Amino acid sequence: MKTQKKNTIDLSTQSVKRLPLYLRIIGEMRDAGEECVSSTRVAEQLNLDTIMVRKDLAGCGVAGTPRKGFPLHELYRAIEKILGCHATCDAIMVGVGKLGMALLGYPGFAQYGIKIVAAFDVKPPASDQIEVPVYPMRKLEDVVLEMRARIGILCVPADVAQDVADRMIAAGIKGIWNFTPTHLKIPEGVIVKRENLATSLIVLSHRMRAAGML
Amino acid sequence: MKTQKKNTIDLSTQSVKRLPLYLRIIGEMRDAGEECVSSTRVAEQLNLDTIMVRKDLAGCGVAGTPRKGFPLHELYRAIEKILGCHATCDAIMVGVGKLGMALLGYPGFAQYGIKIVAAFDVKPPASDQIEVPVYPMRKLEDVVLEMRARIGILCVPADVAQDVADRMIAAGIKGIWNFTPTHLKIPEGVIVKRENLATSLIVLSHRMRAAGML
Repeated sequence: MKTQKKNTIDLSTQSVKRLPLYLRIIGEMRDAGEECVSSTRVAEQLNLDTIMVRKDLAGCGVAGTPRKGFPLHELYRAIEKILGCHATCDAIMVGVGKLGMALLGYPGFAQYGIKIVAAFDVKPPASDQIEVPVYPMRKLEDVVLEMRARIGILCVPADVAQDVADRMIAAGIKGIWNFTPTHLKIPEGVIVKRENLATSLIVLSHRMRAAGML
Repeated sequence: MKTQKKNTIDLSTQSVKRLPLYLRIIGEMRDAGEECVSSTRVAEQLNLDTIMVRKDLAGCGVAGTPRKGFPLHELYRAIEKILGCHATCDAIMVGVGKLGMALLGYPGFAQYGIKIVAAFDVKPPASDQIEVPVYPMRKLEDVVLEMRARIGILCVPADVAQDVADRMIAAGIKGIWNFTPTHLKIPEGVIVKRENLATSLIVLSHRMRAAGML
C-alpha cells in the first residue's frame, strides 16, 4: 500500500476559530514581501502557544520545511480555502433591532465569503443606513426560497425564536446563528450555533478575577 | 495528613464559556421545583457531551450524590459565584457606533454582574435610547478614574484602537474587550479578550460545509 499525502483536513472548532487570526498575520507578512513563515513566529506575533499554533498550521494541509517554515502564499490560500473565503455563502437575518442593525453594518463577514442578502422584521425599520433589503415577516418563505439562502441569523425576541426558527427551517435554512437565549428544538440535518455576547465578557472578568485584578 | 475537600476551582476557558448555559437550564429546573440534577440530564437538555458536562459540573466544587446527582440550589449558587453574578463589575465603552449602540442595549450583561457605566465617543450620538451617559473622548481619563472602572470595551475604528487602548490603560483599565481587528500591544498586567463576530459564522459555515450542507 502506498503512503498517500494526507489531504483530509480535520481541524477542531477551536482551531477553525483561530484561522482568521492566522490569515490576518500571514497576509501582513505576505504584503511585506516575505516568502516563508514559521509557526513560532506566528505564535509570537499573536501571543499564542507555539505548540498549538504548530498543530493548527500543520492541520491546514501545507507541508513546511525545517528551519524555513511554511511557504506563505500557499499557507494563505489553504487557510482561505478552509474558511471558504472564495465560496459565496448567502445568509438572511430575522429581527432588525439594535443588534440586527449592528450585524447588518458589520464589515467583517464579507472577507469570509458570507453575505447577508436579506433581512426580515415584523416592522421593517425606516433607515437609509441599511444596505440590505428588509422585508416584512410574511415574505420570509418566498424570499428564502428564491434566494436559496442556507444560513439564517436569528435576532428576534426570545419568545418568538422557536416559531421563527421553524419557519426558517421549513423554507430551507440549514444553519442558524442563534442570538436569542432560547434553546431551539431543531430537526436532524440542521445545525445551530448559539451566541451569547456576554460570554466573552464573562471569560474576561473570570480571568481578571483569577489574576486578582477585580 | 488529612484529606481536604478540594476548594480551588480551576476551570478551563471552554468550561467557563459553558457555565451560562448550565446556569439557565439549572435555573429552569429549580423554578420547576426540582431538587437534584444529574450531569447526564443537563447534557441531554443542552445537546452536549455527557462526559464534558460531568467534568464541567464537577469543577464547580459541589459534591454530587450517586444516582441523585447534584443538589440544584447549591450548584446554582456555585456557578453564580464562579461567574461573579453578584459581584458588580463596572465597564466603560469607547466608540458608540452601530455595534457600540447594540452592546449598550444588550440585556445579557447585567445578569452576570457586568454593568456598562459610561461610554465615550469623539462625537457622542444624540439618541434618547441610550441609558448610559456618553461623554466626549477628552473626559475618558477623568471618568474612568472617578468610576474606578476596570473593564474597557473597545468599539472604535481600527486605526485609532491602539491609541485609545493606551489611554484606557493609563487611566486604570485592566481588561479590554477588543472588537477591533487591531492586534493591541499591551503592558504586563493587562488582559485583552479579542472579539471577531465573524468567527461564529465561520464556525457555522465550516460545520455546514463539512456536513455537505453548503
